[in-house]
Amino acid sequence: MPHTLPAQPGMALADVDTPALLLDLDAFEHNLQRLNESLAGRKLMLRPHAKSHKCPQIALRQIALGAVGVCCQKVSEAEAMVEGGVPDVLVANEVVGAAKLRRLAALAKQAKVTVCADDAGNVRDIDAAAREFGVTIDVLVEVNVGANRCGVEPGEPALGIAQAIAACKNLRYAGLQAYQGGAQHLRKVDERRAAIAAAVDGVQRTLALIAKAGLPRGKVTGAGTGTYLFEAASQVYDELQVGSYIFMDADYAKNDWTESGIPRFEHSLFVWTTVMSRTRPDVAIVDAGLKASSVDSGMPRVADFPQAEFLKASDEHGVIRLNGASGFALGDKIRLIPGHCDPTVNLYDHYVCVRGARVEALWPITARGAVW
Amino acid sequence: MPHTLPAQPGMALADVDTPALLLDLDAFEHNLQRLNESLAGRKLMLRPHAKSHKCPQIALRQIALGAVGVCCQKVSEAEAMVEGGVPDVLVANEVVGAAKLRRLAALAKQAKVTVCADDAGNVRDIDAAAREFGVTIDVLVEVNVGANRCGVEPGEPALGIAQAIAACKNLRYAGLQAYQGGAQHLRKVDERRAAIAAAVDGVQRTLALIAKAGLPRGKVTGAGTGTYLFEAASQVYDELQVGSYIFMDADYAKNDWTESGIPRFEHSLFVWTTVMSRTRPDVAIVDAGLKASSVDSGMPRVADFPQAEFLKASDEHGVIRLNGASGFALGDKIRLIPGHCDPTVNLYDHYVCVRGARVEALWPITARGAVW
Repeated sequence: MPHTLPAQPGMALADVDTPALLLDLDAFEHNLQRLNESLAGRKLMLRPHAKSHKCPQIALRQIALGAVGVCCQKVSEAEAMVEGGVPDVLVANEVVGAAKLRRLAALAKQAKVTVCADDAGNVRDIDAAAREFGVTIDVLVEVNVGANRCGVEPGEPALGIAQAIAACKNLRYAGLQAYQGGAQHLRKVDERRAAIAAAVDGVQRTLALIAKAGLPRGKVTGAGTGTYLFEAASQVYDELQVGSYIFMDADYAKNDWTESGIPRFEHSLFVWTTVMSRTRPDVAIVDAGLKASSVDSGMPRVADFPQAEFLKASDEHGVIRLNGASGFALGDKIRLIPGHCDPTVNLYDHYVCVRGARVEALWPITARGAVW
Repeated sequence: MPHTLPAQPGMALADVDTPALLLDLDAFEHNLQRLNESLAGRKLMLRPHAKSHKCPQIALRQIALGAVGVCCQKVSEAEAMVEGGVPDVLVANEVVGAAKLRRLAALAKQAKVTVCADDAGNVRDIDAAAREFGVTIDVLVEVNVGANRCGVEPGEPALGIAQAIAACKNLRYAGLQAYQGGAQHLRKVDERRAAIAAAVDGVQRTLALIAKAGLPRGKVTGAGTGTYLFEAASQVYDELQVGSYIFMDADYAKNDWTESGIPRFEHSLFVWTTVMSRTRPDVAIVDAGLKASSVDSGMPRVADFPQAEFLKASDEHGVIRLNGASGFALGDKIRLIPGHCDPTVNLYDHYVCVRGARVEALWPITARGAVW
């Protein structure tokens, strides 16, 4: 129940009941540091994606270490970030419909707000909302650089939207949103490098047309944990939107990182679970299933017991084949590494932040469920 | 954000912002009715599973129509049900660990509480918690009748746990938990019928041993939406634990129902979503992804447009191939049928209850996130 806290600061981790979402603060802080080190000497803005963590406490730590603000994927997520003290949010996504656009424009009274567009009619709707609230909103053109989700094609179609933005009195054309989401989980370094090279090519063609049309350059923003050093090296991207680096989930860990230059981020996010049934040899049932760890990108991994395998999740149970691993007595608590961090975080109301074997803090996930 | 309501009673559905979780009240009430009709004339107790809906408003409606109480899967879920006015809960699962057992025993001061066990040490722990709180707790032996998750094997192992329960001063041996979860989604009627026949066989063997040992028979409880009429006809099951019949998700709809005798329950649960990008021919991007609809049992289906296909979900986007379907203009709102109802419900704080094209009520999902 939402009003029940999963732990208290000062508690021993062993006493934290399960399932709970653990954030290992040493690993988390190490990841923040390694990202900064990997970008040292480059003139790039960092704008981490808050859809991964949904937590102002984390956003403010990223900003304290130099980030210019955060990305969000939904207006409600942006509202939670601004309410939590974040002064600058980019909704790295389209916002469609009068009700949402009114909330976006109202938010622009309280914080710096930027949004993306890929449709001229939508651009006019954003302009109308901005006029109603007496604000000027920065708008980026979302360019489809290979993810084949939202966004217009590079070149003339992107220029068309840029011109539509520039023609609106209450909007400012602010540049290009060029996130290659399809590249992030390609396993081989060369595949990821090639996908970003193609994205850079589309961005450059678009920038040339935009310059020729007399529009300001604006910024180019994009990149994820799987590829960000390639965008950083491109001389074309100005801002990086990495999200998962703070947590490093089981799916990202399957990428080949050798010779990518990208640091080995550590797993910092865990699902804490109890062995709740041990009636069959070599099988342990744990109390974490689909409602405790998202399985869209594969099953969680069993941390600390490399040979044990999480086979199957039902609503409230996980089935682990031990493959001879010892431990796993009834009542034992173990850590799982989630398959996919973002939707797993969205299942919880708090991070139980641990340092070593002790709870140091509870950080509320205030944008949990903020999908609209 | 949790403090923001997704709609107001009286609103037109068209004005409800997206994503939102819709409950079609006509279809929901039809499903409640059809279940009762399908069991008319049988002397069976009905104890619907609240892990599907997590909502006391729904539990109380089920009880008003004759259910003896509800099942829950976790103590926190049971707490939410009792807090919402439900007088009788069965935790149809093992509860392991002193902290949880203390909460369970405390709850037994406020409501009738039953729990399952599959381990003699755990039985002693339940007894200790019951003694501490001065309550008597009913305990069922969970028997593995083919789901291969929790539970002891039928026959001697089950008898052993029953005797361990009966030997405890603060516990009452209450019967067998015999849920064949593995049978529910077998597509063919004959496969499901055969799986339940095997389960019934194991239960009967166990009951014979229990009678021979001089223990009271207790009740036999189990069954799900995919098979419940087979358990009902077995003369062995006393209580049915159906859950999904109220919603009927896309995965259950793939079962063959012909000649099962089980009524055609209607889809009553929908994810309400907006078309947010239309830059490519025959493809619409909607604002409902992994955080709006669980995909563990397959993608959602597009309601009302049979030829359109939901291809892919990312965190906050869904990709729909239209296959020539018209409609789907930018800003249009459509309904999705979730692939799996239980974990989808767990993503939301409210049902937006609609009758026709108007919002009639908001029902809080108070056990959302209640995984511990």
